[in-house]
Amino acid sequence: MAILVTGGLGYIGSHTVVELLNNGFEVVIVDDLSNSEKFILKNIEEVAGKKPVFYPFDLKRKELLTQVFEAHQIDGCINFAASKAVGESQIKPVDYYENNLFSLINILQEFKSREISNFIFSSSCTVYGQADQMPINENTPLKMPESVYGKTKQMGEEILIDFAKAYSRKISLLRYFNPIGAHPSAKLGELPIGIPNNLVPYVMQTAAGIREKLSIWGNDYPTEDGTAVRDYIYVVDLAKAHVAALKRLMNEQSDEAMIDIYNLGTGKGSSVLEVVKAFETANNVEVPYQICDRREGDITVAYANVDKAEKELGWKSETSLEEALRTVWEWQKYLDSRTV
Amino acid sequence: MAILVTGGLGYIGSHTVVELLNNGFEVVIVDDLSNSEKFILKNIEEVAGKKPVFYPFDLKRKELLTQVFEAHQIDGCINFAASKAVGESQIKPVDYYENNLFSLINILQEFKSREISNFIFSSSCTVYGQADQMPINENTPLKMPESVYGKTKQMGEEILIDFAKAYSRKISLLRYFNPIGAHPSAKLGELPIGIPNNLVPYVMQTAAGIREKLSIWGNDYPTEDGTAVRDYIYVVDLAKAHVAALKRLMNEQSDEAMIDIYNLGTGKGSSVLEVVKAFETANNVEVPYQICDRREGDITVAYANVDKAEKELGWKSETSLEEALRTVWEWQKYLDSRTV
Repeated sequence: MAILVTGGLGYIGSHTVVELLNNGFEVVIVDDLSNSEKFILKNIEEVAGKKPVFYPFDLKRKELLTQVFEAHQIDGCINFAASKAVGESQIKPVDYYENNLFSLINILQEFKSREISNFIFSSSCTVYGQADQMPINENTPLKMPESVYGKTKQMGEEILIDFAKAYSRKISLLRYFNPIGAHPSAKLGELPIGIPNNLVPYVMQTAAGIREKLSIWGNDYPTEDGTAVRDYIYVVDLAKAHVAALKRLMNEQSDEAMIDIYNLGTGKGSSVLEVVKAFETANNVEVPYQICDRREGDITVAYANVDKAEKELGWKSETSLEEALRTVWEWQKYLDSRTV
Repeated sequence: MAILVTGGLGYIGSHTVVELLNNGFEVVIVDDLSNSEKFILKNIEEVAGKKPVFYPFDLKRKELLTQVFEAHQIDGCINFAASKAVGESQIKPVDYYENNLFSLINILQEFKSREISNFIFSSSCTVYGQADQMPINENTPLKMPESVYGKTKQMGEEILIDFAKAYSRKISLLRYFNPIGAHPSAKLGELPIGIPNNLVPYVMQTAAGIREKLSIWGNDYPTEDGTAVRDYIYVVDLAKAHVAALKRLMNEQSDEAMIDIYNLGTGKGSSVLEVVKAFETANNVEVPYQICDRREGDITVAYANVDKAEKELGWKSETSLEEALRTVWEWQKYLDSRTV
């Protein structure tokens, strides 16, 4: 029995593959390397001491996907494969809809025809938009996201819920808040491909001198220090939540549809300035920054109520912001050592 | 310069192809015949006196679609191709998402890379759900539709709006109310494939003795006679609206994005019982019926405000309910004559 992990060489995917291997699962990775590199596979093997199976192809290639399902006894899927840059999604919407919807639907066709259950979907807190109340729990009303990226996530959730209901399958929608950090081994982390889209990789590259200054988009938000507040969740903690969610689906003996939805965050909001300061303190480095105008579409505050995940998955975030940010700096040093 | 009409052998598609040919457009049809038959092509040619080009394939076959764009100078598309049975969509959701989204996105990829504009999308009043106010105008808030079919329409609209904005293209979203009727020639109409999903084909088959009794789903709605109220638009009038919408897009000289949205209906609501009575009167036949319980998901009332289409397209419905229902009966006689 193997778990298919799509996008398994990506940032959250690679950490989750390690946790799955550590928990005795066989893992089959499909990843087209569009946002990763081959050495991540080698590093996963070093860190976990076990080898996942790896297929390098684009999930839009349905016939290749079918071959994977024919070659392996797939018992579940964690679907990380997706284009994920919010800004890019606005200028390349058709590619985003194609990449994110075709890959999902192609896998569901295989699940449907082979009677496979246990599907875990990488969703995002972006499905809540700017929620009216904090913290955000799983019953907070969804709002049509502003970005195409966010819409592909919300559409993916809808498609999966309809799939689960129609065919009595078990699914888990995991709504990530803001994943940060790298593996304690410093061999896995968020790869610096292109200009970073997220705060922490940008902070990391600025501290390393790769970027001159960090741009902070707005310090006039109605928050304590005026900068936007997010819920930063350590990637290894996040990876563990996937294993817990998978086990919960697999342990459910009922033949009925099961639709799990969890917010995955720390439950605590941190401002951009707090993250910068924490990074400086944790790593004893300086992060030069400049305050810029607000960025269109950015929300003010988002942090999770994580009671449901704790109660039903027995999972919670265990790693402090500073600890997580230390792993980021170790990862940067590892990247430096590779390029020397 | 040719117009690609997907699903051009289908019910609304075939009528629209005739109107396009009558207006001097060259037409390239792609239709996989999943919900039509080859004789419709011959009948289109007889009615219009001109031949459209026809390709029989499924739009999910991207490489065949690319060949069509290579073989013809496509200047616009009217996209009818879609799975459209509401009930079936609930039990086969993955197929519905696949059919309706892949076909749309595959065409948009061709449009994008070839700098083609002028895309007309078959949407539906289902995107409004049970609206709070009647009549429904184009600014009435959208509600997440209950059915998978409806969701594919709402997602299609979102995808097209993002497409138009990102690439500065011209699109028209046509929200049909309830299309009825057949061509005055009696050579085109809604083909009776499987059990009818809609009222009028069921009425037609009941009058013809193919079905024993019409089931009316609920007579305890808060309407005048207790049966649900819809806005029935004659299919030839509807087809003409497509030509008007296409001309409007093509006449717009600006290079900016253009997003037209129109309700296409008569502006008048008719109850199920009114339709049955009108059919009986128009055709001097009897339609036996029985009152059943309400059907889950059915809304009470939906009819359109059609001022915007009249003002911007110079279009309005011209055919009365009775006239439209007379063409239905002529169509049934034609179908009978074919099977004798």
